[in-house]
Amino acid sequence: MRLVTIEDIEDAAARVRAFIVRTPLLPAGWAGDEDRPLWIKPESLQSIGAFKVRGAFNAIGRLDESVRTRGVVAYSSGNHAQAVAHAAAVFGIPAHIVMPRETPAIKVDATGRHGAEVVLCDAGQRERVAADVVEQTGGVLIPPFDHPDIIAGQGTIGCEIAEDLPTVDNVLVPVSGGGLASGVGTAIKALCPNARVFGVEPELAADTAQALRVGHRVEWSIEDRNRTIADGLRSQPSELTFAHLQAVLDGVITVTEDEIRSAVRELAIHAHLVSEPSGAVGFAAYRKGSIPAGRTVMVLSGGNIEPALLQDILSS
Amino acid sequence: MRLVTIEDIEDAAARVRAFIVRTPLLPAGWAGDEDRPLWIKPESLQSIGAFKVRGAFNAIGRLDESVRTRGVVAYSSGNHAQAVAHAAAVFGIPAHIVMPRETPAIKVDATGRHGAEVVLCDAGQRERVAADVVEQTGGVLIPPFDHPDIIAGQGTIGCEIAEDLPTVDNVLVPVSGGGLASGVGTAIKALCPNARVFGVEPELAADTAQALRVGHRVEWSIEDRNRTIADGLRSQPSELTFAHLQAVLDGVITVTEDEIRSAVRELAIHAHLVSEPSGAVGFAAYRKGSIPAGRTVMVLSGGNIEPALLQDILSS
Repeated sequence: MRLVTIEDIEDAAARVRAFIVRTPLLPAGWAGDEDRPLWIKPESLQSIGAFKVRGAFNAIGRLDESVRTRGVVAYSSGNHAQAVAHAAAVFGIPAHIVMPRETPAIKVDATGRHGAEVVLCDAGQRERVAADVVEQTGGVLIPPFDHPDIIAGQGTIGCEIAEDLPTVDNVLVPVSGGGLASGVGTAIKALCPNARVFGVEPELAADTAQALRVGHRVEWSIEDRNRTIADGLRSQPSELTFAHLQAVLDGVITVTEDEIRSAVRELAIHAHLVSEPSGAVGFAAYRKGSIPAGRTVMVLSGGNIEPALLQDILSS
Repeated sequence: MRLVTIEDIEDAAARVRAFIVRTPLLPAGWAGDEDRPLWIKPESLQSIGAFKVRGAFNAIGRLDESVRTRGVVAYSSGNHAQAVAHAAAVFGIPAHIVMPRETPAIKVDATGRHGAEVVLCDAGQRERVAADVVEQTGGVLIPPFDHPDIIAGQGTIGCEIAEDLPTVDNVLVPVSGGGLASGVGTAIKALCPNARVFGVEPELAADTAQALRVGHRVEWSIEDRNRTIADGLRSQPSELTFAHLQAVLDGVITVTEDEIRSAVRELAIHAHLVSEPSGAVGFAAYRKGSIPAGRTVMVLSGGNIEPALLQDILSS
């Protein structure tokens, strides 16, 4: 299996530059752990509130124009839906987004506002329905993580970390389907070979922590994975992303639901950043104090949280 | 009276660069007003949660080292206190911060955590007490806005806006003592001469709006100014800052308390940025839809809001 290389990621960086926010590294002196000075990479500040635009712009940008004009198709109820819809709108091409019928109206509306056509489907049917839409429209499927162009796009975050803090010692990055961690890990290991890269998972969806221990992918039931509040971290790696994670991760740290809620709260109050639970797990892992000493970067992957949940977390 | 020049501000930019976050301009397509595409300049992401570090680092950085080592003194119950305390800690010099006895403990503690010595005083006595501390310690007073070095430091925000969006048409900036608006306005008028610069004030503390209409400074009672939720916008310009505001502002927009609360809410939900009420007034002004069409930048000046107030605003 061919893994994504630093050259792929650097190509992606050049391709997406005009379309994304070059997020700064924010020093978080308020975190107060002098052995592990912390910086936050706030990908919640991207246009659609999450890092997913990087992969979407890279994957769509790499298509031949004759192919791209036929449009794109994606299945997602989360940030990938909005990322593909937004990128398609910028390229001026049609987008069909397949979403489960139970997706909250607020997310369906947000996707539609980017000009995408939303196709609702029954639970568990979205991959099949997306394949139908591809056949009908001739559009290209943009998968959420299982593709080298997506991994390379997300990896551009690693290039920016290395550029802004070449002496970084630890990088904390959430793991779900593994596109983000694969890309960031590949970039960091190439550019900062002495740095350690830790994945972070909720205890309630810790399939990758277990999989790396046993050396092969493991299946957790969707019912189990759905228990975590971190709704962006309920996917599992593909063969492609798992091969990357085996190559680039120094370990996976798991965090409890309470630790995730506390992390969302601390980031709002002290870093002035609204994060979704999935976006805050890196900070939850940092707070455990178990990583080696050294300059630490956490990737805050997204900020799309329901206002009522944020309010609830602030009041607890 | 000598006004601050673009050369002063560019000098300041070189001086503070190593100490501050180079904040990006964040496109806010979600705001949905196609005639006035919006970008946010999130100064809430500076180390102490507000733009005030720019002026503090410039003013302290410009001191002769023989003078600087004697330390600095400031009076403030707000973001200026933490900015001076933080900058002094970075320079490794003593800081005395004079705060009214009624300052919330959370702010006193935050200032103390930077290593500053907090001197509590009775209401209305802080300037006198600060003068005493200056005499006792030989330290240098760093005023919150009434000084060319502070104005030049805050103006570096304008240079960054001009660099990132040279075709900007409208800039919205909060007005209180006027240091921020003086500096940003001076930079924008020099670098983007066709752009308009609007100050923004709460209706309940709209002394500058009135003063610019009548052509001279006017005095609003502190009881009146204290009515606004925007606790960072209760000061009034000095002679020096008012002269700048007369020269560089195209107008002042006033906003209601409800508009300010809605702005805090929208920025949290859609921009994923926690703002204090004073920091959100530019967005409140934008939402009125009364500024001319064109590319618009709002300066989000700070993010230090009490968690209980943020929670209250999110629930309304």
